[in-house]
Amino acid sequence: YDIDGLKAKLAGIKTEDNANLVRQKSRDFYWYSPTLKRQLDHVVGDLIVSPVSEQEVVRVLAAAHELGIPVTPRGTGTGNYGQAMPLSGGVVLDLSGMNKVLTVQPGRFVAEAGAVIADIDKVARPQAQEIRMHPSTYATASVGGFIAGGSGGVGSITWGGLRDAGNVIRLKVVTMEAKPRVLELTGDDLAKVAHAYGTNGIITEVEMPLGPAYPWTDLFLGFDSFERAAAFANLLGEADGIAKKNVAVIAAPAPQTYFLRHQDYMAPGQHVVVAVVADFAVDAALNLAAKEGAELLLRSDKLADEERRKLPPGFELTWNHTTLRALRVDPAITYLQVLYPFPDQVKLSASIAERFGDELISHLEFVRFDGKVTCFGLPMVRFTTEERLEEIMKIHEDMGAPIFNPHRYTLEEGGMKQTDAVQLAFKKEADPQGLLNPGKMIAWEDPSYDYNAGGTFLFKGLAAEASKA
Amino acid sequence: YDIDGLKAKLAGIKTEDNANLVRQKSRDFYWYSPTLKRQLDHVVGDLIVSPVSEQEVVRVLAAAHELGIPVTPRGTGTGNYGQAMPLSGGVVLDLSGMNKVLTVQPGRFVAEAGAVIADIDKVARPQAQEIRMHPSTYATASVGGFIAGGSGGVGSITWGGLRDAGNVIRLKVVTMEAKPRVLELTGDDLAKVAHAYGTNGIITEVEMPLGPAYPWTDLFLGFDSFERAAAFANLLGEADGIAKKNVAVIAAPAPQTYFLRHQDYMAPGQHVVVAVVADFAVDAALNLAAKEGAELLLRSDKLADEERRKLPPGFELTWNHTTLRALRVDPAITYLQVLYPFPDQVKLSASIAERFGDELISHLEFVRFDGKVTCFGLPMVRFTTEERLEEIMKIHEDMGAPIFNPHRYTLEEGGMKQTDAVQLAFKKEADPQGLLNPGKMIAWEDPSYDYNAGGTFLFKGLAAEASKA
Ligand SMILES: Cc1cc2nc3c(=O)[nH]c(=O)nc-3n(C[C@H](O)[C@H](O)[C@H](O)COP(=O)(O)OP(=O)(O)OC[C@H]3O[C@@H](n4cnc5c(N)ncnc54)[C@H](O)[C@@H]3O)c2cc1C
Ligand SMILES: Cc1cc2nc3c(=O)[nH]c(=O)nc-3n(C[C@H](O)[C@H](O)[C@H](O)COP(=O)(O)OP(=O)(O)OC[C@H]3O[C@@H](n4cnc5c(N)ncnc54)[C@H](O)[C@@H]3O)c2cc1C
Repeated sequence: YDIDGLKAKLAGIKTEDNANLVRQKSRDFYWYSPTLKRQLDHVVGDLIVSPVSEQEVVRVLAAAHELGIPVTPRGTGTGNYGQAMPLSGGVVLDLSGMNKVLTVQPGRFVAEAGAVIADIDKVARPQAQEIRMHPSTYATASVGGFIAGGSGGVGSITWGGLRDAGNVIRLKVVTMEAKPRVLELTGDDLAKVAHAYGTNGIITEVEMPLGPAYPWTDLFLGFDSFERAAAFANLLGEADGIAKKNVAVIAAPAPQTYFLRHQDYMAPGQHVVVAVVADFAVDAALNLAAKEGAELLLRSDKLADEERRKLPPGFELTWNHTTLRALRVDPAITYLQVLYPFPDQVKLSASIAERFGDELISHLEFVRFDGKVTCFGLPMVRFTTEERLEEIMKIHEDMGAPIFNPHRYTLEEGGMKQTDAVQLAFKKEADPQGLLNPGKMIAWEDPSYDYNAGGTFLFKGLAAEASKA
Repeated sequence: YDIDGLKAKLAGIKTEDNANLVRQKSRDFYWYSPTLKRQLDHVVGDLIVSPVSEQEVVRVLAAAHELGIPVTPRGTGTGNYGQAMPLSGGVVLDLSGMNKVLTVQPGRFVAEAGAVIADIDKVARPQAQEIRMHPSTYATASVGGFIAGGSGGVGSITWGGLRDAGNVIRLKVVTMEAKPRVLELTGDDLAKVAHAYGTNGIITEVEMPLGPAYPWTDLFLGFDSFERAAAFANLLGEADGIAKKNVAVIAAPAPQTYFLRHQDYMAPGQHVVVAVVADFAVDAALNLAAKEGAELLLRSDKLADEERRKLPPGFELTWNHTTLRALRVDPAITYLQVLYPFPDQVKLSASIAERFGDELISHLEFVRFDGKVTCFGLPMVRFTTEERLEEIMKIHEDMGAPIFNPHRYTLEEGGMKQTDAVQLAFKKEADPQGLLNPGKMIAWEDPSYDYNAGGTFLFKGLAAEASKA
């Protein structure tokens, strides 16, 4: 690519080509997956470009379009599937400098896409408000990266998933054309770019709802049986009157082995529910827990300040932070993403746990899904071979639990295993040359691809880069 | 009763024995039911006593206990089943003077039991908070009366019913003994007095959660078919990301005939969904509505101020306000209270509507119930005879829709048709002489009563008073 030509066109915009820094900003948490680690380890961009305004984004996209250089957007690079990795090299468009929180009103905020979620709350909290939903990477992830690459997380037990109507209000998006357009998307149009990995537009501004910022309490509850823990978590999820942010179940021995700073609180063999509940709902939640046979292991509101400061917030033991803590102790761990569909979620997750024994450590995250409470799973798997990993996923699907494969870098393979016609149509319009985050949308790269053939999509551009490396 | 003796003991506490005022404060909205109108029309107390503090309540109960005079608590008398009517005469304990809002904190408030719900919000709103759940009698009902006599209402689509854990935090209750005790109830103990019609203790103080006070918008949406209206309401109820307070369906011709101030907005034959949605979620809700074939009839946020001032808030067309508006136009209307159990609520409510044709005008209120979205019904019935009313209820139950009979003044017949062992046990402890609101708890009056025999309980004390009258 004509990187020097590009630099010349971008006078006044911050760029970086130091090899170490470029390598660093060309990766995310893809290494959670041994498969992606093998496939993507060599991936590296040519230049980091860090715009600080919408006008600068427009200039970058126009220049890269003219020179035919791919552009891969990046928030803060906490994605898990190589989503923000530039498979064909080119520009890594670092949006973390576009981080202004523009307005906070009752029930909503407007921020630039690169704003870190925790920083949005710093502005909202003095108004007793906070973001309704966030990944467990709250402290580091950008709000634009969450919308482009995430799916839900803390808050989803109350508000459902990011995809659900009402969870994003408005997005501003810049297209990759000779004359980039700035579009405002609302309503159904949000689906064009939400969870599209930045393949069809650069999000520059986000408007999302805010919820009430209560004092929240972390509850850790121990159970002798995994199924009873799951059944309680489900009941708590369905307890409509109890204001809550998160309900997770982590099977033994993960809490004892991987939650290093919490080990003193856990007894061997206990399956642990980590719940985040409004302070005024703690009594109601504990009352329910006692009836279901739980042992109260820890409640954050009763800790001495000194003790509390030593512990991470409860949500940083949930979602993909559970996996992260496991990986830090045991690098041979990997994970899956599973849906246990309503209404069989409790029994099904317990049968699957039993089916695999020690090879899989269960981890459930309860959410609202189409108006019902059910759970996702992020089970930890003791990795042996890629073949066995495939087999484990096959068994899940055969038992009735769909997999969202976190060992694939394409939208389709990680998601619904079919073309998203809306996103594809928008890419044709907004990125006619296919320069945005190449290789991530199979429907664009290979319209005749057969998702049912059982193979793995291999992006040609990636293969070419790999042979160069 | 020795009313003069009682008055002497209550020096310094406000009492009233003007016959007109006593009659007025001895009734509620029992006349919604032709059956209750026939049974209770003559009911009247002997004296109104209006304490303004917990100490005064203690004094009243001690004195009435000593003299064996029944005490029937009353908030503001908006109940529908003669709940606050003194079936054996005696004291009407008017709690509306105990109306102080004591504290408002993030997520909760404490108020005296007689505080009108709208007045609590006047204190909470400057903190961007409001009560999470209220009856449609928001502007007039007391919070203590809601807890002792209500079941849910506006807000229940998000927070479930009053009975659900977390919807009441704490109650202060005074017992009816020689030395009345003041108890603090939390957790499971709340069920002892919640929805017990004041038969086993006088609530003096209430602590309940608050939710965020958004700018709310009323949406009126028209549908050609009742089933499609119900299906949309269900979808909106299940739309987890859309912040909302109420979702009601009112079948034609009720909106056109009974919503006098809204008639200009409705076309003949339209079945109307009245939804109350946060302003920032209106777009998402309307987008869903358009896909489901709705016609937008009215959105309150787009009305000119002058226009808006002419209309009641949307929630005052829902719950038992729908019935009230019908009764004002057509006094021959009465109503039922129905549960359409998940997951068949939409089909079942439509089949029942079809089964009865013109005799019944459907009215659904969507709620969360045990974690799932389903609906209650408050159908309007063109009354002919009490026998036919019984038949209509029987047909509902045979079709799978349980009835909470609003034509009965006892707890059991209006509710679960069985003894509530917890409330009975607490009455034995807190009101050993059975002086609190006599005649409302069958389990107390006639422990061997057979709920399955198909009869109607007739309180002996009521019969005796009637013969005097
Ligand atoms: C420990 C851990 C825990 C996690 N927990 C969760 C969780 O609970 N829920 C969840 O959903 N995810 C979770 N994730 C994944 C990830 O953290 C989130 O999705 C996060 O919100 C991504 O934000 P980011 O700024 O890091 O995005 P990045 O990783 O930088 O980018 C994510 C994707 O979005 C694209 N993108 C970024 N910014 C823009 C933009 N402005 N315009 C267009 N496209 C853009 C990128 O190209 C990439 O495809 C977790 C990851 C880790 C490592
Ligand atoms: C138009 C209309 C709409 C309505 N909509 C709803 C609705 O949406 N949801 C709903 O649940 N109800 C509804 N109701 C019923 C009623 O309005 C509510 O239940 C209301 O909250 C009752 O409050 P109140 O102060 O009027 O109670 P009252 O009618 O005065 O009393 C209700 C019961 O509680 C007892 N009581 C009152 N105060 C105390 C106390 N401090 N301690 C102990 N016992 C006490 C009384 O003895 C009586 O048994 C409606 C009624 C009408 C007429």
